Amino acid sequence: MLQLNGIFPPLPTSFNKDESLSEKHIRNNIEFLNQYSLSGYLILGSNGELVMLSHEEKIRTLHAAREAIPKDKLMIAGTGCESTRETIILSKDAAIAGADTVMVLNPSYYKGQMSQTALVVHYHAVAEASDVPVIIYNMPANTGLDMTAADIIAISDHPNIIGLKDSGGNVAKMADVIFKAKKGFQVLAGSAGFLLPALSIGAVGGILALANIAPQHCLDIYQAFSDGDFNRARNLQQEIISLNAAVTRNWGVPALKSAMDHMGMYGGPCRKPLQPISEDVKKKLLQLL
Amino acid sequence: MLQLNGIFPPLPTSFNKDESLSEKHIRNNIEFLNQYSLSGYLILGSNGELVMLSHEEKIRTLHAAREAIPKDKLMIAGTGCESTRETIILSKDAAIAGADTVMVLNPSYYKGQMSQTALVVHYHAVAEASDVPVIIYNMPANTGLDMTAADIIAISDHPNIIGLKDSGGNVAKMADVIFKAKKGFQVLAGSAGFLLPALSIGAVGGILALANIAPQHCLDIYQAFSDGDFNRARNLQQEIISLNAAVTRNWGVPALKSAMDHMGMYGGPCRKPLQPISEDVKKKLLQLL
Amino acid sequence: MLQLNGIFPPLPTSFNKDESLSEKHIRNNIEFLNQYSLSGYLILGSNGELVMLSHEEKIRTLHAAREAIPKDKLMIAGTGCESTRETIILSKDAAIAGADTVMVLNPSYYKGQMSQTALVVHYHAVAEASDVPVIIYNMPANTGLDMTAADIIAISDHPNIIGLKDSGGNVAKMADVIFKAKKGFQVLAGSAGFLLPALSIGAVGGILALANIAPQHCLDIYQAFSDGDFNRARNLQQEIISLNAAVTRNWGVPALKSAMDHMGMYGGPCRKPLQPISEDVKKKLLQLL
Amino acid sequence: MLQLNGIFPPLPTSFNKDESLSEKHIRNNIEFLNQYSLSGYLILGSNGELVMLSHEEKIRTLHAAREAIPKDKLMIAGTGCESTRETIILSKDAAIAGADTVMVLNPSYYKGQMSQTALVVHYHAVAEASDVPVIIYNMPANTGLDMTAADIIAISDHPNIIGLKDSGGNVAKMADVIFKAKKGFQVLAGSAGFLLPALSIGAVGGILALANIAPQHCLDIYQAFSDGDFNRARNLQQEIISLNAAVTRNWGVPALKSAMDHMGMYGGPCRKPLQPISEDVKKKLLQLL
Repeated sequence: MLQLNGIFPPLPTSFNKDESLSEKHIRNNIEFLNQYSLSGYLILGSNGELVMLSHEEKIRTLHAAREAIPKDKLMIAGTGCESTRETIILSKDAAIAGADTVMVLNPSYYKGQMSQTALVVHYHAVAEASDVPVIIYNMPANTGLDMTAADIIAISDHPNIIGLKDSGGNVAKMADVIFKAKKGFQVLAGSAGFLLPALSIGAVGGILALANIAPQHCLDIYQAFSDGDFNRARNLQQEIISLNAAVTRNWGVPALKSAMDHMGMYGGPCRKPLQPISEDVKKKLLQLL
Repeated sequence: MLQLNGIFPPLPTSFNKDESLSEKHIRNNIEFLNQYSLSGYLILGSNGELVMLSHEEKIRTLHAAREAIPKDKLMIAGTGCESTRETIILSKDAAIAGADTVMVLNPSYYKGQMSQTALVVHYHAVAEASDVPVIIYNMPANTGLDMTAADIIAISDHPNIIGLKDSGGNVAKMADVIFKAKKGFQVLAGSAGFLLPALSIGAVGGILALANIAPQHCLDIYQAFSDGDFNRARNLQQEIISLNAAVTRNWGVPALKSAMDHMGMYGGPCRKPLQPISEDVKKKLLQLL
Repeated sequence: MLQLNGIFPPLPTSFNKDESLSEKHIRNNIEFLNQYSLSGYLILGSNGELVMLSHEEKIRTLHAAREAIPKDKLMIAGTGCESTRETIILSKDAAIAGADTVMVLNPSYYKGQMSQTALVVHYHAVAEASDVPVIIYNMPANTGLDMTAADIIAISDHPNIIGLKDSGGNVAKMADVIFKAKKGFQVLAGSAGFLLPALSIGAVGGILALANIAPQHCLDIYQAFSDGDFNRARNLQQEIISLNAAVTRNWGVPALKSAMDHMGMYGGPCRKPLQPISEDVKKKLLQLL
Repeated sequence: MLQLNGIFPPLPTSFNKDESLSEKHIRNNIEFLNQYSLSGYLILGSNGELVMLSHEEKIRTLHAAREAIPKDKLMIAGTGCESTRETIILSKDAAIAGADTVMVLNPSYYKGQMSQTALVVHYHAVAEASDVPVIIYNMPANTGLDMTAADIIAISDHPNIIGLKDSGGNVAKMADVIFKAKKGFQVLAGSAGFLLPALSIGAVGGILALANIAPQHCLDIYQAFSDGDFNRARNLQQEIISLNAAVTRNWGVPALKSAMDHMGMYGGPCRKPLQPISEDVKKKLLQLL
C-alpha cells in the first residue's frame, strides 16, 4: 500500500496578475520547497483553489506540478467534484498526469441527500474506476458537511481507498476511524493546528497549509513526535497555532499567498471573489511570521 | 425593468438512463408546462442540478429550453459559479442562448472569506459584464452560507441587479430587503413553503420546485392573494406544506423527478451521487400527491 | 377554549439599581400599557429574564403583575424549567398567582436527549398537572434547540395544550402546525419581525417584544390585516423590521429596557451578565425610535 | 496554586425512584470510586444534572459528597448559573460546603449578548467574590455557545481563575489557550474521547464521564502518557472512543447511570424529561462494556 507518512503542503495554484494560470510559478514554488524533507505535495486542494479552475486548467496544473515533483515524492491530486461521473473522469486524467494518488472531497451541494449510502456509492464508484489509490477528504468548514466516523469507516471498506485527510479537527473521530477502519488505513491531519494531537492518536502525518510557508517547523513537530521527544513536540505545536489560524480559518488562501510572497516564493493573486488581504491584516500577518 | 411577477418552476434537467443530457425531455417538459399561466422558467437552478453539469452541457440545456419556452415567458438562467470570471463567461453565454435574465448563486466554498465586500465585488463585476439583468440567489440549505439583509441590500445597489430569489425562508429578512433596497427591487420566494407569507410582505412571486408538479395550485395561491381572497389563499398555502417539503428539503430532486414521472412528465434519473428514492419513500410520496 | 387572539407584550422584569426586584415598576409599566387594546401580557418570558430569577422571585413577579392586569386581559406566565417536576410546581404556583395560562419553554440543556418522546412526556406531564391551559414555547435562538413541526404536533395532542408561541421565524413550519394540529390550536408569532407573514398563514396573534415600546404599531398591523387592508398591513410590517431587530436579536433585553426608559416607562438595568448598551448603540437605537 | 493534575469523574447526582435526592447513594458511589487513584471529583457538573436541582438540593449534594471525599482528593463544585449574582451566592455556599474549587459554566441563554466583555465581567465578578479558586467550564454541546480561545484567555487574566475544563474537543484551541494564557493556567480535557490528544498539547488531566465507569482505563491512559509509553497510550485511547461516545454524546446521562447500575454502583433514574435508555440501547451499551 502506498505510504502517506510525513508532511505534505497543499500547494496554492499560482495565477498571473490577470488571474490566468501560471505553470511557471507552480514549478518554481515546488522547486523551492523540494529542499525540505517533505513527503510530497497535494495539488488542487482547497488551498489550490480547486473550485476556481476549469477541468482543462486542473490538468495543466497537474502536469506542471509533476514536472517539478521528484519521483521520490508523492503527487496527490485533488479530484473531487459534485458528480460521480466528473470525479471519475478527473481522477483518471490525474493518474495520466502523474498523480500517485487522488484525494476526493465529498460532494456537498445537495447536503440533505448525502446519506451514508450516497457517499459510499460515490466513493466506491470512484475507487473502482480510478487507476491510482483514493484518499477521502473531509473539509466541513468549506463544504458545510461533516462526514461521521461511521460514514468514513463504511467508505474505507474498498481495497483502493487507502486513507483520509480530515480538516475538521475532531481528533476523537480520527481515533475512532483509525481503531475501526481496516488495518493500514492511513489518517492525515488536515491542519497544522492539530498535527500533534492527531499524531498522538495514530495519524501518520499531515497535509498542512502551514507547510507551504513553515515547512521545517511542521517537519520538526513530526520528527520530535517520532523521536518520542514530547516536550519539544508540544512546545513546537503550541507556537504555531496563531500563524496557522491566520493562513487558514481567519484570512484563508489570500493570506497564505501573501505570506509566500513575503518569503521569496510566488504567492500572487487569488481568483475573485477572493480578495487580497488588507494592509492592516498584512501587518498582523508579518508580525506572526 | 424586467418584471418578475408570478410563478416560475425551476426545471429539473433531464438525463437519459446513462445520465447523458436529454434535450428532448427538457423541451417536452416545458411544452407540457406551457399550458399553465406560469410567468416563465428557471433553467439551471438547484433543481436543475447545476453543479452536476459541465459548461458545455449548461449551454446545451439553455438552448434546448429556449426552443420550448415561448417568447412571452421568461427564461431565467442559473449562472452562479465559484469564480467571478467563470460566472461572467457563463452569464454572457446564457444571454446568447436566449436567457432574459441570469440568476447568480453566491460563491460559498471559501465561506470564511465571503465578506460583504467580497460578495459586492463579485456581484457588481457580474452585473457590469452581463448583457441581461441579474437576480441574486440565496440558498443557504445548499451553500451553507446565508447572506444577510445588509449583504443583499449592498449588492442590490447596481442598476443591472433587479431582484432576489431567497430560499432560506426568513420572511422578516425579505421584508427588510424590500423596505430598504432600491425602489422596484423584486423579491421572489424560493420555496412554496412560504409563498403566501412572502407575498404578504411584498414579494412579487416565487420560483418554486412545487410548480413543476403542482403548477395550478401554486398559481391559485398567487391568484387568491392578488384577489384579496385571504381565507382561500391561507387554506391553499397550508395544504401544500407537506408535499412541498417532500420534494425539497426531505427527499430533494430525486423525489421531484419521481413525482414528475408519476404525473406523465419525464423525471428520469438524477446524476450520481444523488440516489433514486426508495420504494418506501415512493409510497409516501404518492400518498402526498 | 381560552382565546389568544391579538397582541401581547412580553413584559421585561423590572429591577432596581442593585438588581433587586421592583414590583412597583412592574405594576407601573403594566398600568401604562393598559391604555392600549392589548389582549394581555406575558410575564416571565425571555424578555422577562426568566432564567435570572429564583422561584420565589418569579412568584412575586406574577403577583405584582396580576394586581395591575385587569381581569379582561390575560396574564400568561412563563413557567418552563429544565426539569419536569420544577416546571409542574411553578405552573401550579403561577395559576395560584392568577395566571390565565402558562407558557412552557422546552428543556434544552441536554439537547442530545430531547427526543420527540422526551418532549411529549414532559409537556403532557405538565399539561396533566397544570390547573390552567398550557402554551408551547419554541425559542431556538436562546435554547439552541428548534422543535420541529412534528414535535409540536405530537405535543399539541393533549386537551390542556392550547397553543404555540414560535420565535424561530419559520412560517412554513407554523403553517404546517396550524394545518395538522387539532382544530382550534392557536399559533402566536414570537416576534414582530414576522407578525404579518404569520397572520397570513393563520396565526391568531403575537407575543412581541416590540409591543412593549410600539404597542399601537403592532396593533395597527394586526388590525389592518383583520380589516383586509393589505397594503397598509404590508407597509406597517416593513417599517418595523429594523427597530424590532434592534430590541431583539441585535441588542436584546438591554436595548428594550433602554427604549422603555426613553419612552417614559421604567426600563432600568438587566441582571448581570447582561450589560447595558453602549452610548454608541444607544444613539442608533434613538434614531430607530 | 491548586494543582488539577490527573483524572476526575464528574459524578452523577443520585436520585431515588421518585426522583428525590439520595445523599446515601452519592456517598456510596464516591466510596466505591475512592479505591482508584483519582485526583478528586466534580460534583454538580453536566453529568450531575446541575440544571435539574434547586439551590438547596445543590448544597445538600455538596455536603453529602464532601463527607465521602477524602481530604487528599479535591472536590470541584459546579456553580455556574445564568445570573452573576446567583453564581456568586452558590460559589460561596459551595466553599462553605467544602469545595476546594468551583467550576463555572458560562451563562448562555442570552447567546446574542454574551460578548467577550459580558463574559469577562461575569467571570471576574465571580472570581473576585469566590473564596476558592475558579475553573472556567466550556460545554458547547449543551449550552450552544462555544467560547473562543480569545474569550478564555481574556477571562483567565484574574489571579483567582486557575484553569479550564473544555468539553468542546477543539484541541487546537486548547493548545492556543495553554500557550497564551498566564503561566500555570491549567487545562483539563472535558471528555475521554480526546484525553490523549489534549495531554499531548499540554493539558494536565481530564474531567471525564467515562471515569465513573472505567476509572482505571482513564488512569492508564494518563499514566502511559506520563511514562512516555506512547504506543500503549494510543492503543488505550483508541479503545474507549465508542464506549465514551455511548455515555456522553449518544445516549447521555441515562446511559451513564445505566452502566453504573450494571457495574455494582448506584445509577438510578434521571430526573425527567431525561428518559431511561431503551432495552435496545441497553443491549448495545452492555456489549460496549
